[in-house]
Amino acid sequence: MNKLWGGRFQKTPEKWVDEFNASISFDKELVEEDIQGSLAHVEMLKATNIIEEEEADSIQKGLQSLLEKAKNNELSFSVKYEDIHLNIEKLLIDEIGPVGGKLHTGRSRNDQVATDMHLYLRKHVQHILELIQSLQKALIEKAEDHVETILPGYTHLQRAQPISLAHHLLAYVWMLQRDKERFSESLKRINVCPLGSAALAGTTFPIDRQLTAKLLEFDRVYPNSLDAVSDRDFIVEFLSNSSLLMVHLSRFCEELILWCSQEFQFVEMDDTYSTGSSIMPQKKNPDMAELIRGKSGRVFGHLISLLTVLKGLPLAYNKDLQEDKEGMFDTVKTIEGCLEIMTGMIRTLKINKEKMEQSVNEDFSNATELADYLAKKGLPFRKAHEVVGKLVYLCIEKGIYLKDLSMAEFKEANELFDEDVYEVLNPYTAVNKRNSEGGTGFSEVKKQLHLAKSLIY
Amino acid sequence: MNKLWGGRFQKTPEKWVDEFNASISFDKELVEEDIQGSLAHVEMLKATNIIEEEEADSIQKGLQSLLEKAKNNELSFSVKYEDIHLNIEKLLIDEIGPVGGKLHTGRSRNDQVATDMHLYLRKHVQHILELIQSLQKALIEKAEDHVETILPGYTHLQRAQPISLAHHLLAYVWMLQRDKERFSESLKRINVCPLGSAALAGTTFPIDRQLTAKLLEFDRVYPNSLDAVSDRDFIVEFLSNSSLLMVHLSRFCEELILWCSQEFQFVEMDDTYSTGSSIMPQKKNPDMAELIRGKSGRVFGHLISLLTVLKGLPLAYNKDLQEDKEGMFDTVKTIEGCLEIMTGMIRTLKINKEKMEQSVNEDFSNATELADYLAKKGLPFRKAHEVVGKLVYLCIEKGIYLKDLSMAEFKEANELFDEDVYEVLNPYTAVNKRNSEGGTGFSEVKKQLHLAKSLIY
Amino acid sequence: MNKLWGGRFQKTPEKWVDEFNASISFDKELVEEDIQGSLAHVEMLKATNIIEEEEADSIQKGLQSLLEKAKNNELSFSVKYEDIHLNIEKLLIDEIGPVGGKLHTGRSRNDQVATDMHLYLRKHVQHILELIQSLQKALIEKAEDHVETILPGYTHLQRAQPISLAHHLLAYVWMLQRDKERFSESLKRINVCPLGSAALAGTTFPIDRQLTAKLLEFDRVYPNSLDAVSDRDFIVEFLSNSSLLMVHLSRFCEELILWCSQEFQFVEMDDTYSTGSSIMPQKKNPDMAELIRGKSGRVFGHLISLLTVLKGLPLAYNKDLQEDKEGMFDTVKTIEGCLEIMTGMIRTLKINKEKMEQSVNEDFSNATELADYLAKKGLPFRKAHEVVGKLVYLCIEKGIYLKDLSMAEFKEANELFDEDVYEVLNPYTAVNKRNSEGGTGFSEVKKQLHLAKSLIY
Amino acid sequence: MNKLWGGRFQKTPEKWVDEFNASISFDKELVEEDIQGSLAHVEMLKATNIIEEEEADSIQKGLQSLLEKAKNNELSFSVKYEDIHLNIEKLLIDEIGPVGGKLHTGRSRNDQVATDMHLYLRKHVQHILELIQSLQKALIEKAEDHVETILPGYTHLQRAQPISLAHHLLAYVWMLQRDKERFSESLKRINVCPLGSAALAGTTFPIDRQLTAKLLEFDRVYPNSLDAVSDRDFIVEFLSNSSLLMVHLSRFCEELILWCSQEFQFVEMDDTYSTGSSIMPQKKNPDMAELIRGKSGRVFGHLISLLTVLKGLPLAYNKDLQEDKEGMFDTVKTIEGCLEIMTGMIRTLKINKEKMEQSVNEDFSNATELADYLAKKGLPFRKAHEVVGKLVYLCIEKGIYLKDLSMAEFKEANELFDEDVYEVLNPYTAVNKRNSEGGTGFSEVKKQLHLAKSLIY
Repeated sequence: MNKLWGGRFQKTPEKWVDEFNASISFDKELVEEDIQGSLAHVEMLKATNIIEEEEADSIQKGLQSLLEKAKNNELSFSVKYEDIHLNIEKLLIDEIGPVGGKLHTGRSRNDQVATDMHLYLRKHVQHILELIQSLQKALIEKAEDHVETILPGYTHLQRAQPISLAHHLLAYVWMLQRDKERFSESLKRINVCPLGSAALAGTTFPIDRQLTAKLLEFDRVYPNSLDAVSDRDFIVEFLSNSSLLMVHLSRFCEELILWCSQEFQFVEMDDTYSTGSSIMPQKKNPDMAELIRGKSGRVFGHLISLLTVLKGLPLAYNKDLQEDKEGMFDTVKTIEGCLEIMTGMIRTLKINKEKMEQSVNEDFSNATELADYLAKKGLPFRKAHEVVGKLVYLCIEKGIYLKDLSMAEFKEANELFDEDVYEVLNPYTAVNKRNSEGGTGFSEVKKQLHLAKSLIY
Repeated sequence: MNKLWGGRFQKTPEKWVDEFNASISFDKELVEEDIQGSLAHVEMLKATNIIEEEEADSIQKGLQSLLEKAKNNELSFSVKYEDIHLNIEKLLIDEIGPVGGKLHTGRSRNDQVATDMHLYLRKHVQHILELIQSLQKALIEKAEDHVETILPGYTHLQRAQPISLAHHLLAYVWMLQRDKERFSESLKRINVCPLGSAALAGTTFPIDRQLTAKLLEFDRVYPNSLDAVSDRDFIVEFLSNSSLLMVHLSRFCEELILWCSQEFQFVEMDDTYSTGSSIMPQKKNPDMAELIRGKSGRVFGHLISLLTVLKGLPLAYNKDLQEDKEGMFDTVKTIEGCLEIMTGMIRTLKINKEKMEQSVNEDFSNATELADYLAKKGLPFRKAHEVVGKLVYLCIEKGIYLKDLSMAEFKEANELFDEDVYEVLNPYTAVNKRNSEGGTGFSEVKKQLHLAKSLIY
Repeated sequence: MNKLWGGRFQKTPEKWVDEFNASISFDKELVEEDIQGSLAHVEMLKATNIIEEEEADSIQKGLQSLLEKAKNNELSFSVKYEDIHLNIEKLLIDEIGPVGGKLHTGRSRNDQVATDMHLYLRKHVQHILELIQSLQKALIEKAEDHVETILPGYTHLQRAQPISLAHHLLAYVWMLQRDKERFSESLKRINVCPLGSAALAGTTFPIDRQLTAKLLEFDRVYPNSLDAVSDRDFIVEFLSNSSLLMVHLSRFCEELILWCSQEFQFVEMDDTYSTGSSIMPQKKNPDMAELIRGKSGRVFGHLISLLTVLKGLPLAYNKDLQEDKEGMFDTVKTIEGCLEIMTGMIRTLKINKEKMEQSVNEDFSNATELADYLAKKGLPFRKAHEVVGKLVYLCIEKGIYLKDLSMAEFKEANELFDEDVYEVLNPYTAVNKRNSEGGTGFSEVKKQLHLAKSLIY
Repeated sequence: MNKLWGGRFQKTPEKWVDEFNASISFDKELVEEDIQGSLAHVEMLKATNIIEEEEADSIQKGLQSLLEKAKNNELSFSVKYEDIHLNIEKLLIDEIGPVGGKLHTGRSRNDQVATDMHLYLRKHVQHILELIQSLQKALIEKAEDHVETILPGYTHLQRAQPISLAHHLLAYVWMLQRDKERFSESLKRINVCPLGSAALAGTTFPIDRQLTAKLLEFDRVYPNSLDAVSDRDFIVEFLSNSSLLMVHLSRFCEELILWCSQEFQFVEMDDTYSTGSSIMPQKKNPDMAELIRGKSGRVFGHLISLLTVLKGLPLAYNKDLQEDKEGMFDTVKTIEGCLEIMTGMIRTLKINKEKMEQSVNEDFSNATELADYLAKKGLPFRKAHEVVGKLVYLCIEKGIYLKDLSMAEFKEANELFDEDVYEVLNPYTAVNKRNSEGGTGFSEVKKQLHLAKSLIY
């Protein structure tokens, strides 16, 4: 076979070397973007009279026909032609004859592949933004139903203070909001056009990069051709943002897995999002949540992988950069899938309100109330903390809770205690009174819900 | 010793367990931020009448005195008091008596440490932005001197096409510009106040979070207390941004190391940025560039480290989060140092203009000109490419360059060649003619320089 | 100041550049190894008559004196002399005069630093092997007390089948056994002597590398001087082995954290290994377990960091390699600390046997027994699984457990059920009957304990 | 559709959830191992009379038939049946009827999948060991031809001392030898049988694990069923070993890329392993070397990915573990491909001996000789180093090399210089005299070659 770049060569690679080298097995994912980019490029070549109008028309017709076939999955590619660009060029020439060779005037595969990836990532980041929003809405809807549902808030996985379930769910809404901010901001650096940078140095053809950029709906063009063809920052940024998103999903999944356990029983996963065991008939496993938690590793791996590829790479294009694609494709697929599953999981989640509330009545998560109670009566907080610590220890010894202590026992611990202490110990009161801004008090949670909706809907 | 939280405990940890647990050995780095945060907190406690005015004044006086001592390195800390927060509280109580215990009213170490880190990172990100700008200026100044200095542009570390040195240097200016964008955008998420979120759920004290935020010059407060105390996204984002910055620096250093080699000899490093060998007297090693290249690994490591810590962590605070600090401190120190060294290295770099230009005259990096030449005369680019490829092979066989071919040899290869071909092969012409937008042509490079200066100065 | 390698230089680095470049701030950790290596080197120089006997004696006396001081922390180092090697050399010359300069004959800092690190890691890997063994013993002792303590075994954090606590603890013993295997095997590659490789190519002095290796108790010498000075594989291997060890510790810590929660209450952590909250008086947090879990990130980070440094580095020594040390030191400190804490935590762990056994009596973890029961009576396992799955669903609907079903209900589900079914449902029976090799049956667990002790004690 | 584990469920997952959950798209890679494991399992069930002989025979016949079809790529799988195990079971039941359901007696998917992966990795690690050996042989053969070919040895990418090319190539042979050691050692932990551990706790069926292990040619069985089903250490270890292998290949590729550059021109890559440019006709790019260098990132990524998955995972099986496979498969494919390409690249590499030797005659890499020369005449090495450093500077100023200095200039620098100095400066002499053990002297290199061949052939 004759390589399109083979003039200077005496031997052609063997088939197995070709296979190692070729990227067509994965970069075919870019087929539509590649044709889209070529359509704009040829339009510009026509407008600038670099090629003749009829030539341009013929090429555009050929490309349109290939695009149609691509959408219907009717194109077949070969490792012989290495990558999506040369495969499309070959198919074009088969379709319209040698004039197809003029398409590559004034560009190189280096700026072409960069353009494809910018187009690809722009499309998917926009989609991901929508998917995150859907997940936020699912959380907000669930939160609206559970402003006054109380469960233990944890630190160190120890019950700390009772909180509103809505408050807990909203914490994730804000994390996701930051994810959206970062993905949105990254669009500034994604939606930039490298086309026309050619191999690395620009071209001697009188091309019009502003026109191509406009046709492809890019915001602006790269001001430096070297940078344009060797920049993969926007992919690293995408992988970083995706890693943080996965951190958030993995944290939530960890909680869902805990909450589904027989020990917690705070929620029940819908059957749709659970699977069974081939050997244990009673099992109902939160597989989806575990899988999402596990998939964080995959995304972190892709991030570190691309950072490694880029580290210490001289300008401009190096073949190492071919390694930028699979991790990006897989990350897109992973986070899109995780967001969809997560949204469905939340929407269908059954909340076991009784079990949650029972929990806050049978623990010491109201101990801070007691310390605050004493502090408000004038005891320095450190001292109040110590008094209550000792009462907790006393309760544990006796196998009771704080609310079960007698007035006498309270008084013995500290004279400042009075009958109103029992009301303070009620978890419902405890939650409701934490009305500092952003706190878990019901009125504050409602304000927070309102704020979230105003930003997200 | 009696722990400040020890009321409920019967035993105290042994010394070596204390040491494992304590963070004071590294979080003392936050001493000024911690006192700064406390000063604002007590001001708010006073304004909201949560504590008495005299109490507040006494605490503030004590804190001011500690701040003074901190700046003079006169404070001494102990692992007995675990972390910077309890150490400062202890020192405060030593200074002003038990009233110091009131400082902790309405807050927890969870929101306190988060506040410290937001303050710390805000300060350093602002500093880093300045340092990046300095490096950009050093590059721009060097570029201004070398618009018409020509060197080979490389792809695959093979000479590709001759380019302007200014064009090459400006590529890094744009990478750094993106770094600045990302760091700037991250400030939106750094400059948010968690103080007042208390342990996780807010507090029952009538605190005024807006006031504290304002005193500390934060843009806004976290709308959710749970999120506020468990959010470390802003540190991950900082480490991601730093990783990309290090990618850029490592790429540049790789090039500097290549350029300093006897084989390239494109530049000479100033003695200040070089070191010798204990055994080989002739050595002048580009140690700083190597060190910066190597330090990319350190920053990637800190990124993956924090992602690992956060993966699957349930809400809210968990002790694992203590692992967020050392990597952040080390990254700040690393990138600040690398940026300063890099700026000095560029400013003092000697450019070996002759050697660069000699290179572009003794290679085949003008082959694309020849193909473009034929294409412009109407030959389809693919065919032109093949003709030139064969000429290159012929030259290699004969040990000559393209410009050494006779007119007859050109004509034999293709009839379209004419006498004007020799001018086309001149590297200076080749560079100058690449005047597509963002290309390496001198006029375009000058425009690019102008744009860069308008954005950066 | 005059650099020891400065003959060829006209300028000396500025102080802040020195500080960036110098490694003395961390490689002073190698002071004893460095002197130890020098002592062997000078002994060899004497034996081979490369230097005179009196010179050698004088140098050795000087080094012994420095070693003494080093052990008493009486040496002070300076960034002026870059690293531990040049600092020691300077101190030696101060101590014994210019003859100290002869110590460096026939070696370079490149082979010297490699030797130091091999010595350092050999010492610490041996120590780590002992610490792992101590942890294994703590687990085995705890296991011996709890062969017949039953708790739920989990898959997907759902109760799966009841198991022996000893069985669970022994799972970690085997993981740690693999860690020991890997660390032991790595000693083959650690205990190899690079000394005498000089800068990269060996030396023209008639040195005796076998002698130096023998004096330093190395097993063998590197057969290739280039490889010897640029090999950092043994550190990567150490970091990989440490990462896997941290995976094991983090998994166990996750379980301990779960088991300490109010929901599980399977164990109680000794006060020594717990801490409280500055705001919530009731809290007793498993801080050490969380910290160890978090510290896995740190070690993974160091691993990825060194891999990044080494990626794509040409032979032989490059300054990037200076980045190999801090991660190694920190990993040694981290895993030694984690192992010690973990051992103490296990030894002092209180097992809440009643709570564990109560759990297995109030769940469906005996459902597999029922399916096996039917399978043994001839029903294909898949069919048996389905029958039992439906019975479980029936129980959940009725709010009862399998043992609470009436004989009639059993019969209705399948005719093969008989009175003996109730015995089968007893968790104690269930555990005891899993006597397949390596299973959780008590007799098998005892065999396993015996095997573990025979291998470890 | 009815799930095989669906008895307890009321709803079945929707198709898109199924797809997210299913692993069949990638774990079909394990089809042969899965059937192989089942064949052994059923043989054991027969031998222990757990199932009837005729049943066993029928199942075995069915499995053999499926194995045949698998080898001919005639099996088709469905996401409906989740994974390779349930797909095979379904196909088996289709083939031989409900008796196929008995195959799963006494085992679970948890021990089954673990068995498949142990079998898979055993096969591939053995293959990888052979591939590494082939690469070593290619290096040794090339080295044998180039014992006396001299090139500059580099440190800091600065020419340091001249060395033998064979010496340089052998450095990689030793790195690969360590890789082989590690992969070999890992087989101890790979070749262990988890089968019979069932879901996590063993089984009540009287299975014979020793028999299954023997049939599958495993060295031994896991002593603990919990550990057996949740252990993925052997995969992490594989990924760690692969990462180090990729470090070695990436370092070599970096050198090949440098050596192919017009600046070095030390080697020429065979056309088979090079590619051209779509725009620059003269380009001959070392694509394969760049690709291998880049693929190090991919393998590091898979390592960090699995470490992340495992971090903090409680016992025993969790669905997160499904994420263990794709990275392993991809790493196997990557390193097998890289090793094959690398071997071909070395075998066909053209060495430009003249260019290499020209280099060592036109630099200062003989400066150490001069310092050693003075040291041997009694000058302390530090002083000798300084004298030579100044001579180097003098040469640079005058644009000459050390060998071009007059005797008078030598004498002026130091009286110890004499006529024999010129011989010392000859690079051939310089290399030949470095005959310390493992050094680059020709006789030592020959010994080293002999040693390498004795170990590897």
